[in-house]
Amino acid sequence: MHDYIYLDRLIAQALEEDLGSGDITTSSVVPPDTMISGQFTLKKGGVVCGLAVAQRVFTFLDPDIRFTPKCKDGDRLNAGSVIAEISGCATGILSGERLALNFLQRLSGIATKTESLVSQVAGTGTMIADTRKTTPGLRVLEKYAVRMGGGRNHRMNLADGVLIKDNHIRAAGGIAAAIEAARNKAPQTLKIEVEVESIREVEEALNAGADIIMLDNMSSELMEEAVKLINGRALTEASGNMDNRDLREVANTGVDMISLGALTHSVSALDISLRFDKPKN
Amino acid sequence: MHDYIYLDRLIAQALEEDLGSGDITTSSVVPPDTMISGQFTLKKGGVVCGLAVAQRVFTFLDPDIRFTPKCKDGDRLNAGSVIAEISGCATGILSGERLALNFLQRLSGIATKTESLVSQVAGTGTMIADTRKTTPGLRVLEKYAVRMGGGRNHRMNLADGVLIKDNHIRAAGGIAAAIEAARNKAPQTLKIEVEVESIREVEEALNAGADIIMLDNMSSELMEEAVKLINGRALTEASGNMDNRDLREVANTGVDMISLGALTHSVSALDISLRFDKPKN
Amino acid sequence: MHDYIYLDRLIAQALEEDLGSGDITTSSVVPPDTMISGQFTLKKGGVVCGLAVAQRVFTFLDPDIRFTPKCKDGDRLNAGSVIAEISGCATGILSGERLALNFLQRLSGIATKTESLVSQVAGTGTMIADTRKTTPGLRVLEKYAVRMGGGRNHRMNLADGVLIKDNHIRAAGGIAAAIEAARNKAPQTLKIEVEVESIREVEEALNAGADIIMLDNMSSELMEEAVKLINGRALTEASGNMDNRDLREVANTGVDMISLGALTHSVSALDISLRFDKPKN
Amino acid sequence: MHDYIYLDRLIAQALEEDLGSGDITTSSVVPPDTMISGQFTLKKGGVVCGLAVAQRVFTFLDPDIRFTPKCKDGDRLNAGSVIAEISGCATGILSGERLALNFLQRLSGIATKTESLVSQVAGTGTMIADTRKTTPGLRVLEKYAVRMGGGRNHRMNLADGVLIKDNHIRAAGGIAAAIEAARNKAPQTLKIEVEVESIREVEEALNAGADIIMLDNMSSELMEEAVKLINGRALTEASGNMDNRDLREVANTGVDMISLGALTHSVSALDISLRFDKPKN
Amino acid sequence: MHDYIYLDRLIAQALEEDLGSGDITTSSVVPPDTMISGQFTLKKGGVVCGLAVAQRVFTFLDPDIRFTPKCKDGDRLNAGSVIAEISGCATGILSGERLALNFLQRLSGIATKTESLVSQVAGTGTMIADTRKTTPGLRVLEKYAVRMGGGRNHRMNLADGVLIKDNHIRAAGGIAAAIEAARNKAPQTLKIEVEVESIREVEEALNAGADIIMLDNMSSELMEEAVKLINGRALTEASGNMDNRDLREVANTGVDMISLGALTHSVSALDISLRFDKPKN
Amino acid sequence: MHDYIYLDRLIAQALEEDLGSGDITTSSVVPPDTMISGQFTLKKGGVVCGLAVAQRVFTFLDPDIRFTPKCKDGDRLNAGSVIAEISGCATGILSGERLALNFLQRLSGIATKTESLVSQVAGTGTMIADTRKTTPGLRVLEKYAVRMGGGRNHRMNLADGVLIKDNHIRAAGGIAAAIEAARNKAPQTLKIEVEVESIREVEEALNAGADIIMLDNMSSELMEEAVKLINGRALTEASGNMDNRDLREVANTGVDMISLGALTHSVSALDISLRFDKPKN
Repeated sequence: MHDYIYLDRLIAQALEEDLGSGDITTSSVVPPDTMISGQFTLKKGGVVCGLAVAQRVFTFLDPDIRFTPKCKDGDRLNAGSVIAEISGCATGILSGERLALNFLQRLSGIATKTESLVSQVAGTGTMIADTRKTTPGLRVLEKYAVRMGGGRNHRMNLADGVLIKDNHIRAAGGIAAAIEAARNKAPQTLKIEVEVESIREVEEALNAGADIIMLDNMSSELMEEAVKLINGRALTEASGNMDNRDLREVANTGVDMISLGALTHSVSALDISLRFDKPKN
Repeated sequence: MHDYIYLDRLIAQALEEDLGSGDITTSSVVPPDTMISGQFTLKKGGVVCGLAVAQRVFTFLDPDIRFTPKCKDGDRLNAGSVIAEISGCATGILSGERLALNFLQRLSGIATKTESLVSQVAGTGTMIADTRKTTPGLRVLEKYAVRMGGGRNHRMNLADGVLIKDNHIRAAGGIAAAIEAARNKAPQTLKIEVEVESIREVEEALNAGADIIMLDNMSSELMEEAVKLINGRALTEASGNMDNRDLREVANTGVDMISLGALTHSVSALDISLRFDKPKN
Repeated sequence: MHDYIYLDRLIAQALEEDLGSGDITTSSVVPPDTMISGQFTLKKGGVVCGLAVAQRVFTFLDPDIRFTPKCKDGDRLNAGSVIAEISGCATGILSGERLALNFLQRLSGIATKTESLVSQVAGTGTMIADTRKTTPGLRVLEKYAVRMGGGRNHRMNLADGVLIKDNHIRAAGGIAAAIEAARNKAPQTLKIEVEVESIREVEEALNAGADIIMLDNMSSELMEEAVKLINGRALTEASGNMDNRDLREVANTGVDMISLGALTHSVSALDISLRFDKPKN
Repeated sequence: MHDYIYLDRLIAQALEEDLGSGDITTSSVVPPDTMISGQFTLKKGGVVCGLAVAQRVFTFLDPDIRFTPKCKDGDRLNAGSVIAEISGCATGILSGERLALNFLQRLSGIATKTESLVSQVAGTGTMIADTRKTTPGLRVLEKYAVRMGGGRNHRMNLADGVLIKDNHIRAAGGIAAAIEAARNKAPQTLKIEVEVESIREVEEALNAGADIIMLDNMSSELMEEAVKLINGRALTEASGNMDNRDLREVANTGVDMISLGALTHSVSALDISLRFDKPKN
Repeated sequence: MHDYIYLDRLIAQALEEDLGSGDITTSSVVPPDTMISGQFTLKKGGVVCGLAVAQRVFTFLDPDIRFTPKCKDGDRLNAGSVIAEISGCATGILSGERLALNFLQRLSGIATKTESLVSQVAGTGTMIADTRKTTPGLRVLEKYAVRMGGGRNHRMNLADGVLIKDNHIRAAGGIAAAIEAARNKAPQTLKIEVEVESIREVEEALNAGADIIMLDNMSSELMEEAVKLINGRALTEASGNMDNRDLREVANTGVDMISLGALTHSVSALDISLRFDKPKN
Repeated sequence: MHDYIYLDRLIAQALEEDLGSGDITTSSVVPPDTMISGQFTLKKGGVVCGLAVAQRVFTFLDPDIRFTPKCKDGDRLNAGSVIAEISGCATGILSGERLALNFLQRLSGIATKTESLVSQVAGTGTMIADTRKTTPGLRVLEKYAVRMGGGRNHRMNLADGVLIKDNHIRAAGGIAAAIEAARNKAPQTLKIEVEVESIREVEEALNAGADIIMLDNMSSELMEEAVKLINGRALTEASGNMDNRDLREVANTGVDMISLGALTHSVSALDISLRFDKPKN
């Protein structure tokens, strides 16, 4: 699908970055016809993500490499689990190993972190959502990893949603004026979201017909009051330093979504290794 | 310098990713001639990195935006410090804000983490080095951030150094054969590094003339024995799960370098915000 | 702004297409230091669009060419009006002339056609909107031309709005199921639009909570009934072969928007010429 | 053939333009394994063009989609004719439908318009030719569509023919001087064409050895006189506002070619739809 | 001019090729604010070519570097001549030095070789022309160097001239059939050239109306006979292993052009060095 | 392998350069279903190089063309030898013929020249190495051709080795200071090479711990003295105008490597032709 175009360009650039003018160790040391096989294995438990990306890294280098997933993106597995098997010509496998692991570890790290936060609000009906605080160049993949961890996606980019913040409001001359301007100029197909910091601003946004209201840096008490006031007339989103908050308490205010930049900007790679089989003689 | 070509392509792609078909909120809501100014401020203390990247994001969007650094990459500053000032047309500043912060926060996060590890081994003479476990597409910047944090760079890619690992050795038929093959085929201008796991392998590598010996997953006792045996005849590098080790203890074995993937693959963004001035009337 | 990146790539490709390995006539025949000046003039009345694009074509070829707009995009002018003046080195001006005119004539043609349709529904409150039936590669510019003609933009691409059509409904197992699936998987920030062909489908879409209802190929009577039934609970859009309909009659049904592919796929270029001044001796 | 490289880049860019970060409707609503089939059908009669382009759009998205042409580019068919059948996974087909139709409709529109003009001069021996007034980015395809409609191609770009116009003549100091300059500097493999507006200029061009003489904005009487004077010593081309002239009258002057910008810059899309089969149960 | 787009892409790619992830020597060893100056000097006499390319290499790296040509492309100068001066920041100058010299030396080598062959036929009226046997990626520059050496350009690519060779003739069923096919399908704006090997083929080509006749691998006697027979009714081109022939003897047959692949495929670089000034203290 | 990404981009660009908007001769004259076959034949003896590149040119144009190598890169063959056979559709073969030959002839020319120089020093143990004086855009291929001729590669680019020259030394304040700076800032994985011109500088470089010492423009006597002094403590490289020296005499000084720019910047193409079979009837 579309991923194909996007992924191929991303992987081609990343391979050029990692290979430079070529994998000099492998081409000097490993006989060209050496065959190897091995397993991608979790060294810590977590949610797996990025199998198709890893696969494409290898088939990009050598279409004859067989990369066989043993699970699906989004699966939660324990340490020690084999997530994929690989076999084929050593040259391509050794040259692609690092890049494939770099993708797998980062995307699985995001999926694992997301799942952990989603589980904190389980049963409340509140969604965990990402932001635009993603790694430059990797947004589509990182937002995919959030979905694989059970999270929801917020805007993909500045064109697919109107989000009116403090500075927009000031420049437009108030919340109502800003929403009015957006309604008159932005495509009718987009929702209009407004960031507010007080109950008075919530009322202003509601009156002006906002589709989504972002409750920014509010205490749980204030947030609860805002949610009650809105009463379903707009979607509600809790935002602002959420990775230092008790998410369950926030969810209990009744907000529809909690969004966190830390889902993608502060993540530990999930530890995954590629272990090769000993050659049989 | 070369960064110019590399940076411009990277930033152009990242802007396309973040802007999509355009910043619909700003273009709908903010009058085109609105001028704003503000400060990039550290919300937590850390080592700043990425000022030139942030600057280029804005001048790419609008050459008339003034982005004025108030410190240098590599400076350690406290929470609350202003690291740069910005002023100009609101359109470009609001459209570039997120991407500039995404770069600044990630690179400063890496520099800050590096500095913290470097300080753990201060005075031992041991260097902290990165690996190829970087974010796909961002390697040059991330390795720059490691240097700004006081760390050293290992190989940039598979072409600028020979690093013979387990699988290469097995395919070549032994450490000596692998080193011999590399010496006969790789450019003479490259050093040859070999990964070893035992004293016997250290001896084999030394005898075969390795330039660098990577001591992989060794206990501190074994490592100390290896370093003594090598006795300056090759550079030594400690590697393997180092982010869960006591780095000072490792450094005290006398190794020349400790390399850690976690420097770049498991990093928290440094919290930086862009605060705008209230317009004066 | 973002246009800069997009425009530059577009113009670079179009210049390569038109110049091939170079403008052999001009380089062979015109002395390199020849200076010329001239005026871009409307040969028929219409709405001007594309001045910044034309300007960029010339400054791309030679930064010293002066292209001075004498009006703004969106202005309606009579035949004979001068819309821009140009002066500078003949080499760049003659090499860029055709491409600049190709852009200006097409974009002004779209703006002129849009304005003509907008004027047909003047006073009804109904908006005229475009579709995704644009020329491959030129969507951002063509949608800009629609705005300059007084029209509104529908979706920019398949990612910035959910539009559920016949086949999606059939694959999902009904309107309600399709809307439910979209709400559970698509970002919360996107509106959900559904294409319907009967009053029964209108009701189904309303009940399922559609944000926009596209009334496809309905007679004006049926459309009026649908609009009354919806009664402001969703935006309404008239679609399907609209360029052969009496738009005023359609608008009088009370629909919010009428969308037409012909705004961009069946357009006559606005006739514009570049007339050069006789050299003064 | 070469089209492969050109087409793939064109289609990749157009898909990115239309898909943005992905077809959110299809991926949310349509189960991934849904299979569909359908027919591309003419809603108005015309000359079909662009089948291979449409096919490539789909195989680009999913190599397993079967797109089977039922006619050839250049065929004239009546309304209701099926021009191609398609079957495969719904995801790729629904995501590529719009772009494939955008190409097919525009190229078939050009071929149909060309054929209509060619038929107006049938039997006169005069050729209908295009110009460089094509859509930026689509020249190779649009000129192909002209051929499929029975027209002939003029220059592809500024490098593959010398065409000396008014301004070149003025800068060179006369027709003879301009032709002399071109003969001395341009490759010998290129023909030299000169634009003239009077009998005196025709004589000057002939004497200087022009290969092609473009009779610009001449009345039919004047044109006839010019053609007689030239008498086969150069090719003749009628140009200038030709879409408002009686082409048969122009052809009867004996000119070799009539060139029209309107062949490509003022075209209505040919109405083509993709109708899907009802799933069989 | 167009060169700008073409040159910038070419230079960007060549700089990436030569810089890799950066000029590690200069950045490690040379203090960032070091200023240097020097002269590009011919170590052997020859025709200079490529000054603008060399200049662009440096301004690409650092817009503040001053590269001042002391002669023009096409000038013939003796050994020891200074062709350009340079001054500015050492970082950019040292990083760009090699690439600038690689361009200058190759292009000047081509111009020098061309001039030497042109001088062999001086006074005969015969032109020396290049072929498509150029270095992949450098054709526009190499053909420019041929012009700077006094040579003429043959086709730039397969689209800007018809050249019917042995295999085309065989596939078409004879010379007359091939020319007829080309006249009916190729743009009227292109000349038709035919490769012939005998007097009988010359007659066939003439009768069919060829614009240019390539006399391939003919003895001087046969060539002279062919030229007499053609008698100005077509341009004549001598081709085939011409770098091992006495060019003056070939020119004396009266052919219009002699074309040689060796002009571009077998060239010695002109020896040029960049000598730096000693710093003044 | 990585070559795949690099080669495809290189070949795509070179095909666009050579095809322009298409091979007008072949498409006009040769019936689309014509099949042909032929042989690539050496017209002079030499070392063959570039078979995979030539093959990729053809399969890029038409995956069904069969290009069958009859030898391997690096083989030395006599004039008249068939190095590859080709068969398939005439369209793709005729369109790709020139580019395939341009690559084959240049790369085989380099391999042949390299082999000739290597044979001059046979038995001495001295290696022949290339430099960065390669054709812009073709470095990876040209350095591959050097290896196929039996030569060794020096640095691929400015990032994979430290080479301290005259200007670096002057800017750093001496050889020792320059080496010290490199050791403190460049990656530990890179060797440090220093260019020296006298015995005093050799000593300085040795004392400072240089890994490689480049003996620049030294007489054979001086070089012999330097090699004895160094006595294996560093690699030695003879450089500077080496193509005008007696290489065997230089090798007899005991240097490890002799590097020559002329290996890649002053090369005659190896004469190779593609001869087609007569069609059988």
